[in-house]
Amino acid sequence: MTPSNQTTRFLGSLRAVRRFSDRAIADPVLRDILEAGRRTGSSKNTQPWQIVVVRDREMLKRLSELGGFAGYIAAAQVDIVLVMDSANNAFDCGRLAERLMLAAWTHGIGSNIASLFPDENARKAKELLGIPDGRWVRQTVAFGYPADEKATRVSSTPGMGALMPLGRKPLGEFVSWEHYGKRA
Amino acid sequence: MTPSNQTTRFLGSLRAVRRFSDRAIADPVLRDILEAGRRTGSSKNTQPWQIVVVRDREMLKRLSELGGFAGYIAAAQVDIVLVMDSANNAFDCGRLAERLMLAAWTHGIGSNIASLFPDENARKAKELLGIPDGRWVRQTVAFGYPADEKATRVSSTPGMGALMPLGRKPLGEFVSWEHYGKRA
Repeated sequence: MTPSNQTTRFLGSLRAVRRFSDRAIADPVLRDILEAGRRTGSSKNTQPWQIVVVRDREMLKRLSELGGFAGYIAAAQVDIVLVMDSANNAFDCGRLAERLMLAAWTHGIGSNIASLFPDENARKAKELLGIPDGRWVRQTVAFGYPADEKATRVSSTPGMGALMPLGRKPLGEFVSWEHYGKRA
Repeated sequence: MTPSNQTTRFLGSLRAVRRFSDRAIADPVLRDILEAGRRTGSSKNTQPWQIVVVRDREMLKRLSELGGFAGYIAAAQVDIVLVMDSANNAFDCGRLAERLMLAAWTHGIGSNIASLFPDENARKAKELLGIPDGRWVRQTVAFGYPADEKATRVSSTPGMGALMPLGRKPLGEFVSWEHYGKRA
């Protein structure tokens, strides 16, 4: 067993992509991504989710107007709307999103999570897609092949670089050992 | 590009493991898992998390008493306590947990999520580990090599099989196309 293996390097290589090419995602590839997502674990295996797969260009444009930084959905090939049983399932929703994004990434397909925000926008999305009132919708994941080599860099998306810090905290600021704040 | 590739099959193969062997997790392997976790994406790249890595057997036993079905933590090699900035970060917490579990799985290491529940138990865990009041703690992930070949089956854990449905919903009950409830 190698300490650092190919698959953990793959997991660590996932980057948000917000600029997509117009290359279509083939049906068998989409199905493969959905299949990996379907198998995601959840609290007591309740699988408290449904997903709505949106490829219709007009609907993608409408969804792109329902989040503060969701404009890129308009140019995505697919947007997956995550529909949860209740707001208490946010943790499981995150597991599902991460799984779907990694599965897409194995095919070279980039993705990004958009929040439908504020609540009024989430309500509009539910109305557009016929999602029952009782269900909880907040996140969607947009998918597409990266527009170019720079598309995995936040700084290449107009306006995004200034909005968020780049990179990740080092292990020394992320991990405590045995007691909170006890660094290695 | 193959429609179903080796890595998506790997992603779909993750199973919850609640019965662990006493084989230690080597430091470089643990570090590799943490490194993959460290790189997890989050809302606006806020990285709203800290983790506490627990290997002390006495502390593992104490944590195992702080959840409804957390008993297996007592026999884990490592328990990672997920410390979030606030309850609003539950979605990102789920992304981090999924990433850590998949990274461990690449090394053949099983894991399971336990909820520290009710709130009083989460409070106790924070006290034991010195986690500041203002932080949000609900989930931990316990890690260890599977005890045996059957350890990936829910039904092999005493009492668990009766608690939850086995298997996953088929795609036809999980996916809507373009409109909620519109099946393929």
